[in-house]
Amino acid sequence: MNRGFSVNSNRPLLDRLGAVAESTLLIDGVQRRIDDFLAAQTSELDAITPELHDFVSRSGSLLAGGKRFRALFCYWGWASITEIPDPIDPMPAESPDPTAVIAAAAGLELFHAAALVHDDIMDSSDIRRGSPSRHRSFEQWHREQNWAGDAASYGRSSALLLGDLLLGWSDELIDEAVTEAGSRGRATRAEFNRMRNHVTYGQYLDILEEQAWRSAPEAEQLRRAHRVVVYKSAKYSVEAPLRIGAALAGASAQHLSSLSAYGLPLGIAFQLRDDLLGVFGDSAVTGKPTGDDLREGKRTMLIAFARRGLPGNARELLDELLGDPELSADQVYMLQSTIRESGALEKVEDLISKYVGEAKSAVDGAGLGIEATTELFRLADRATRRSF
Amino acid sequence: MNRGFSVNSNRPLLDRLGAVAESTLLIDGVQRRIDDFLAAQTSELDAITPELHDFVSRSGSLLAGGKRFRALFCYWGWASITEIPDPIDPMPAESPDPTAVIAAAAGLELFHAAALVHDDIMDSSDIRRGSPSRHRSFEQWHREQNWAGDAASYGRSSALLLGDLLLGWSDELIDEAVTEAGSRGRATRAEFNRMRNHVTYGQYLDILEEQAWRSAPEAEQLRRAHRVVVYKSAKYSVEAPLRIGAALAGASAQHLSSLSAYGLPLGIAFQLRDDLLGVFGDSAVTGKPTGDDLREGKRTMLIAFARRGLPGNARELLDELLGDPELSADQVYMLQSTIRESGALEKVEDLISKYVGEAKSAVDGAGLGIEATTELFRLADRATRRSF
Repeated sequence: MNRGFSVNSNRPLLDRLGAVAESTLLIDGVQRRIDDFLAAQTSELDAITPELHDFVSRSGSLLAGGKRFRALFCYWGWASITEIPDPIDPMPAESPDPTAVIAAAAGLELFHAAALVHDDIMDSSDIRRGSPSRHRSFEQWHREQNWAGDAASYGRSSALLLGDLLLGWSDELIDEAVTEAGSRGRATRAEFNRMRNHVTYGQYLDILEEQAWRSAPEAEQLRRAHRVVVYKSAKYSVEAPLRIGAALAGASAQHLSSLSAYGLPLGIAFQLRDDLLGVFGDSAVTGKPTGDDLREGKRTMLIAFARRGLPGNARELLDELLGDPELSADQVYMLQSTIRESGALEKVEDLISKYVGEAKSAVDGAGLGIEATTELFRLADRATRRSF
Repeated sequence: MNRGFSVNSNRPLLDRLGAVAESTLLIDGVQRRIDDFLAAQTSELDAITPELHDFVSRSGSLLAGGKRFRALFCYWGWASITEIPDPIDPMPAESPDPTAVIAAAAGLELFHAAALVHDDIMDSSDIRRGSPSRHRSFEQWHREQNWAGDAASYGRSSALLLGDLLLGWSDELIDEAVTEAGSRGRATRAEFNRMRNHVTYGQYLDILEEQAWRSAPEAEQLRRAHRVVVYKSAKYSVEAPLRIGAALAGASAQHLSSLSAYGLPLGIAFQLRDDLLGVFGDSAVTGKPTGDDLREGKRTMLIAFARRGLPGNARELLDELLGDPELSADQVYMLQSTIRESGALEKVEDLISKYVGEAKSAVDGAGLGIEATTELFRLADRATRRSF
């Protein structure tokens, strides 16, 4: 298929339509790749015992939905490189084969599913995307079966193992992508390894912060919260997927660095939006109870800004209530108002705009593919837009 | 180095000495590979923040000890193939390069450390190899730091993340081995992927059994316990490491199948010995409290045999006490006597001997390397010997 023609005529409109259609096709393609992978694993485990079916099928709902941001960033990172016209053959007869990038995107989505399953155990979250979290779902299954033993402990252990299984599977899919990519595989694998380590460090720093923040000097709290955001979210959700996709396409160091310069600020903005949703979001939008982050006691940048903006007694009250799992709806409402009045909400909204702007300028004129650049602009808005 | 000469003269004695020295060298080599890997990771995370040092350093003690059976089986699986004389060049000038197999063995040991960390969370075990389990160690650290929040929950979450990190690292080392192995890499990776899936299935079936055994028909209980042993232990601890090593050396399907025919029965015997230790073992030998498996309620083959051999009322008492975390020392002693009197201990000892015999005949005359075959015989005895 020669796609040079349609891209070059009437660019703005067609680029836009082309990118949207391409993203939809990609998401379908990634889902198919995940489904095929699961089907292959399932037929193997059926041969062992159908009881494993009950175990593995509990990953299904997690793997069938979500916004697929990581898959999208991975794909558009790849496209941002493959779309760069070859100076010798600017209109090649064939589009590049997306098999490898679709396997990588599917692998990232499985990795994310694993992270969510483990995250919900750590946070003792009951709900994920409007349905019971995996450990709760296993717990419920135990009760329905009238088994001996402790349902909650069976639920946690089964979910822990399901997460481990999904981690291994994500790796199998990344490995397919790496093998498919031939000589570009090593760089891709290195990006994936770095992502896997960094997100685990970020997760640890996040739970450490919930425990240790009181011991840290007041002046460092914002910086500490920022560090968590960078490792747990910005690198993981945006920068790493972009770089993994780009590495599969054989990106130069300079292009990788432009994608990082887009991905890091955008990733921070993405997490800041999520932090706002965690405090102010409607449960219909977030799929979690309103004020969940307040009950969990997350020490986000939003909270660090609020603490700075509040007078002593209001700050003490905030510190006291934050992290109380039993907060009533009234108390949640009161905390929301306090945070709003501190000026922190506005500060975070300003930061989001600033970071989105930075992200866009980093890829504007960076010499990446034009359709991909347009889509990266659009994704920057989509990933950070206000929805509460 | 030409090693043909020493192997061919005065074989029995030199083989034996050679293999023992080689195993010691291997264990040192694997430890060095692990240490180097940890050092590289640590220098990277120091650049992020020294607080991550406290997190990662908690893996150290787990990664510095143990019997290294998986590393040994991996190595001797490899050597069993590389030692087969090449008909064209039966005395090559150079020994085969063990870099890949040492990376793989190190990867298997990291994987096992991850499995132990997660296993201890699932079983709420306080002790591992005579020291606090990882989640308990993190919990203690929290208390020493006088942090806010729940120490036990911090301990569990940190250990869960440490296990995830180690899973990723094991994969990095396996990937090094796979890359090093060139065209043999794909087969090796496939063996590793299968191992990772199977052990997780086995672990799930194990916790399922603790819950669901009452619902299963009486006649099936031994078969169900056997299934757990095969997936959780026999394949994982013996067969898979052997096959991974052999695949790295480019083993034929026939040689792989001889190694499986050795590894499966030996792995079952290995687990049966472990089950006996879990019930009758001295805590000085096991590094765990005496009778730990009784308090945990493990439905092992030993228990299935005991239930068959006991009259109705004794069986009911066994069922009632098994899995009670508060069992007193007297109750543990009473259960030990009951199981002994049922004849189950003797049955299991007979089975261990039978399986070890089967394992040895599978590699005897199978055309594998002679020094490796001798060592596989020795390992069969070492992995299953009575030590209580």
